[in-house]
Parts: sequence; C-alpha cells; structure tokens
Amino acid sequence: MTTPQPFVLKWGIISTGRIAMDFVKDLLVDPKTRGTTDVGHKIVAVGSRSVESAQKFIKAYAPNEADIKAYGTYNEVYANPNVNAVYIGTPHTLHYENALAALEAGKHVLCEKATTSNAAELKALLKLAKEKKLFFMEALWTRFHPLTLELKRIAEEGTLGDPVVLHADLSADFHIESLPLNHRMLDPKLGGGALLDLGPYPLFWAILALYEHPSNKNARPSSIVGSIVKTPITGVDASTSFTLNFTENLQAQAILSCSMQVPAANFGATIRYKNGNIIVKPPIFRSPAVTVQYYDKPGGDIVREETKAFSYVGGGWHFEADEVARCVRDGKLESDLWGHEKSIIMMEVFDEVSKVPPDGQGNTHMI
Amino acid sequence: MTTPQPFVLKWGIISTGRIAMDFVKDLLVDPKTRGTTDVGHKIVAVGSRSVESAQKFIKAYAPNEADIKAYGTYNEVYANPNVNAVYIGTPHTLHYENALAALEAGKHVLCEKATTSNAAELKALLKLAKEKKLFFMEALWTRFHPLTLELKRIAEEGTLGDPVVLHADLSADFHIESLPLNHRMLDPKLGGGALLDLGPYPLFWAILALYEHPSNKNARPSSIVGSIVKTPITGVDASTSFTLNFTENLQAQAILSCSMQVPAANFGATIRYKNGNIIVKPPIFRSPAVTVQYYDKPGGDIVREETKAFSYVGGGWHFEADEVARCVRDGKLESDLWGHEKSIIMMEVFDEVSKVPPDGQGNTHMI
Repeated sequence: MTTPQPFVLKWGIISTGRIAMDFVKDLLVDPKTRGTTDVGHKIVAVGSRSVESAQKFIKAYAPNEADIKAYGTYNEVYANPNVNAVYIGTPHTLHYENALAALEAGKHVLCEKATTSNAAELKALLKLAKEKKLFFMEALWTRFHPLTLELKRIAEEGTLGDPVVLHADLSADFHIESLPLNHRMLDPKLGGGALLDLGPYPLFWAILALYEHPSNKNARPSSIVGSIVKTPITGVDASTSFTLNFTENLQAQAILSCSMQVPAANFGATIRYKNGNIIVKPPIFRSPAVTVQYYDKPGGDIVREETKAFSYVGGGWHFEADEVARCVRDGKLESDLWGHEKSIIMMEVFDEVSKVPPDGQGNTHMI
Repeated sequence: MTTPQPFVLKWGIISTGRIAMDFVKDLLVDPKTRGTTDVGHKIVAVGSRSVESAQKFIKAYAPNEADIKAYGTYNEVYANPNVNAVYIGTPHTLHYENALAALEAGKHVLCEKATTSNAAELKALLKLAKEKKLFFMEALWTRFHPLTLELKRIAEEGTLGDPVVLHADLSADFHIESLPLNHRMLDPKLGGGALLDLGPYPLFWAILALYEHPSNKNARPSSIVGSIVKTPITGVDASTSFTLNFTENLQAQAILSCSMQVPAANFGATIRYKNGNIIVKPPIFRSPAVTVQYYDKPGGDIVREETKAFSYVGGGWHFEADEVARCVRDGKLESDLWGHEKSIIMMEVFDEVSKVPPDGQGNTHMI
C-alpha cells in the first residue's frame, strides 16, 4: 500500500506587503509540522507594482524557490496558466478589482479581510465566482486555527448552554499622529480607519460564537448599532464600537470594539454562556490560549477552569491555505467553515456601522 | 484644646428592602473605623408599608437603637421634625413621589439609583430642592469609596495621559425564568430590566473616567447609542449595551453593558489611556482592588503594574452617608463629587437607551 501523493495547490501572490510576506512564509512551512499530509503548496508567481520589488520579495522570503515568476503587474499573475489560486493581499479598496480580474482569468481566490469596500462589491465577486465555478474565500485565517476548532467543539458540545453576551476587542496603537496621511490606516482612499482593518476579528468571534451556534438556527443578526469616534487627522474612524443582537432564536448580544489608538483590551474575546465562560486570550486574531470556565449552576460560581494553549510551526496562515487547497481539490466553491454567507454578514455589518453621519455621531441600522 | 464634637445627621429611612438594610447597617458602623471623626449618623425613623414591618426591620438591623420611630407610612417619616435627611430605598418608579414628598416636607434627600424613571422627573426634583434650599444627592456610593478616590488621583495626576476607550460591565444572573412576574427586575411598572438596576454602575465609571477627566473640560457626551435584547417574559431589557462618545475635547469612547442573565464580565471596568490601563476588579460597584498598568511608551508594552487593595469595616454605604452629613453641615445643596449634573447625565442616557422601539431593535439618539 502506497501513501497517496498530496494535492499541491499552485499559488499566485498579489502584493508584496507585510501580510503577503506572512502568508508566503507560511506557504513554505513543511505541512507535516502541523500534521497536514493530504495537501501542499507551491508558489508559482508573485506580482508587485514593479518587477524589482517582486524579485526582492522572492529573494527575501522564498530564497530557495528557484522557479517563482516575478512580475511587475498583477495581470501577469492572473494570466499565468500554472497558477491555480490567487492570494490577494493588497489594501482593502483594491480587493474588488484584483479579485474580479483573478476570477475573470479563471483563478480561484483567497482574498484578505475586509474582502471588499462594501457588501455590494463582495456580492458581485461571489456572483462571478459562482458563474465561473471558481472557489472564493475571505482570508479569515483565525477560523482554521486549532484553537478555534477546539473552542467551537467545547462551545457546542452542550455543557456551557447557550451564549448570552459576548465582548470582543481588537485594538492596536498605530501612533496615527506620526503616520503619513497616505498610510493605509489613515487614508480614506485605502479604506483607512480601525473598522475595516481591525473590526473583522471581533466580528469573527461574534459570527463563530453566536451566528454559528446551533441554537441560533442560522438566523442573521436581528439588529446592529455602531458608534464611532473619528480622528480629526483624516476623518476616518479611530475608535469604533458596534453591537449585534441575535434575537430571533438566541436572545444574545455581541459587543465588539476596535481602536487604532490604544493596545488591545486585556479581556480579548469573552463569551459568556448560561453555564460558564470562554475567554480567548489576546491577540484574538491568533490567540495562544483559551480558558473555559464552568459554573456550579447557571449564573453561579466558577468551580472548574481549564486553559488550553496551542502552538505550531509558522505564523498560522498555513491553516487557511490548507483549507483552500482541500476545497479546490474537492471542487468546492466555498469553505464549509468560512463560507460566503459569513463574509456577506461581515461586509453588511461594516456597511451599516460605516453609515455614521458626517458629524461623527452614532447611528443605527437594521440588516 | 478640645476635640470638636462631630456633626450628627439624623436620618429617616424610606423602605425596608434589602438596600435600606445595607444602608442602615452601615449607618451604625462606628465612623472612626473608617477614619471619620467630623461627622456621625443617627437613625431617627424608619417608614415601611406597615408599622409591623418597620418594627421588624429595626429589631433586626438596629436592635440597640432604642429610640428609632417605626412608621407604617412614609409621610410620617417626612413629617417627623427630628429627621434632617431622608434616605429613599424604594423601587425606581417610586423614587420620584417619595423624594418629592420628602423635599416638600423640608427634608434633605439621598435617593437610590436610578434616581427616577426619567430625566424629566429628576429635573423637577432638583428644581424643587433648589427652591427649598435642600440638599439632594443620588446614592452613588461607589463615588465615595477610598478605591475610587485613589483611582481618580492616579488617573488625573498625568502619567497615564488622556483616556481613549473604556469598557465596563455589570451583569448578574437573576434567574429571571424563575422569578415572579412582579419582581422588581421583571416588572415594567417597577422600572424592571437590566438597565435601570445594573446600568448605573458601568455608566458611573464612564462619567468618572471620561466626563470628569480634566481634558474633557466638562463636555457632555456628544452622542450615545443603545442596543437592547429584551426578555420575552415581560418585555423589559435583559441584556443591554450602550456606548457614549466624548468627542468635543477628549476623542474618547465608553462601551458599557449590563445583563440580568449572566454573571458580571471578568474584566470589570477597564479604562485604556494613551500610556497605560486602569482595571477596576469586579464587582465594579464595590471593587476590592484596582490595577494600574504603565506602558514603556504610548501604546507600548506594560513595564510597570501596581495593584492596590482596599478594605474597611462595613458594606461601603457609609462613605456616601458621610458625604451627605458634611454637605448638610456645610449648607451645600449638592455634592462636589457627585453633583446634580452627573445624575442628570445618567438619567438622560437611560432615557435615550430606553427609547428602543417595540420590536426590540437597537436605536440611536443624541443628547
């Protein structure tokens, strides 16, 4: 009996920024170090705004990969017949045009968060992907981490009961007072602000813990409300809070926040169930450990607490790459774990939170 | 040289419920145990709905105070010429008529939180108190705790810089599914729901840390937004989140929450400053300890952390009683530490958050 050869997905990389660097470094980690033997990855092409920067990127982060093509345009990556799937790591406001071009060229797509600038753009991309029978996934890497898989198992095996309230915060001090005005965090033209850059992570935990919870029966959030403090520097959102209610079946609330002016809150993501708590330690995009607390009775005292730590070789982006490879191998158009509907909810939430009037006051919308 | 005799405030107690019990027990604690030598307290009268319950209350909680009058009506307390100040511990929706009657009878008033059912009622009370030159204070006992005084000193001495984001939660599982429908937490006629019962405490920390911060220059919140999950049992709010922005001078945000279906969040109140954090350990109404964390640089790493624990004889309600005694002694009409303007902000915030439409969706308002 022979071991079947792993399915190797051939990647084209769009952008040579920091997130593309993280992703490429992880593609080169031996999959066996994370127990993956059924799929593997090969980097075929890297596209940048100049061929020199693509070459420099390859030399720096994939020095032992002799046959990666370096391109000075993204279109050459999409046109390369050896590329199966394109990873898009450009700024938010370019995702739509980049993903559209990749799909039109017949490539599967893994697209960074926030997937697009608004839900309408995302829906157009998904429509095209389905028409062309191509796989499309938002690069929600946290969904595929071992910690997340284990947390979800614990959350849904029954002991904790239904979730009631969730707090999640992702913040980071970008020292915006010292940044150039065209920095991605400050420039409205690049989708700047805390919400689109940091907001996907607290919202992710709400979708995982509330939307995905079996008791929610796939009900979308019944309402959402956002509150924004804008920076006077460029007018983008500096500190943002948004609350989602899940009332159709679950009677639960998610209280989410992000700021680009302070470090992340110490409580990470805290999910409060009838019979206990789950605390996802910061950073919530790649948490090192999760603590589960069990009460003696609903709303009672904590009588049992377990902390589970997780580690692996690499940065943690390879788990989502494995998911893409498996889905492409199996002919799937979306991931079972992070499918299109969840990405649509994300963008619709961001759309609603962003509709705060120009005076910076809070606002409310239904979705 | 003789030590001056302390000024002794003579109290009438309205209601014989649990909160009145806590307050009365603290009035009987020797003030010297908390370092108080300038004022003292004497209980003159207790009013209940029957004289028997007033007598029972006195026997249970003030057995050594021989000359306390037990009354079966509140009006007899207000009419007692020996009473200087009335403490009102009835349910929220009775505060207005009780305080009005006390003021009309010429008594100073300490009124439990939430002071009234809405801001209009509170403003009417404050107008009457000023006309009659009587002292009125919301019973915001947490404001007068040694921990709070020390926290405020640390927050404002300069090292931490301006506050940016604050999270505060007060929740408690009241097991509402098992309560009688006329319980104060469930009955709309008693002001039931999480907001008026639990909401004053997270909001208190926002007012202390943001409204009172010198950089805020006394600016009121520029906007507020609320989100409510109602209980199907009686339709009152079960889990509520509300966010206040302070943008006129401070560019800061307070994210507050309360629920009567889960225990309090483990993070208590977390105030995030440019140069560090202050964490008020739960329960945030009577915190046992505060941790102050200092960064090496704005938004940097925590390089110094100090935890200060606080303890005293009694439940902690006596500190607010001392404040009332000092203010009455000095002829003040409001407290410098918790004045009328702060109580008005509280009620206006609750008014706005409560304006959620009947379908239970979130809502937004400016104040």
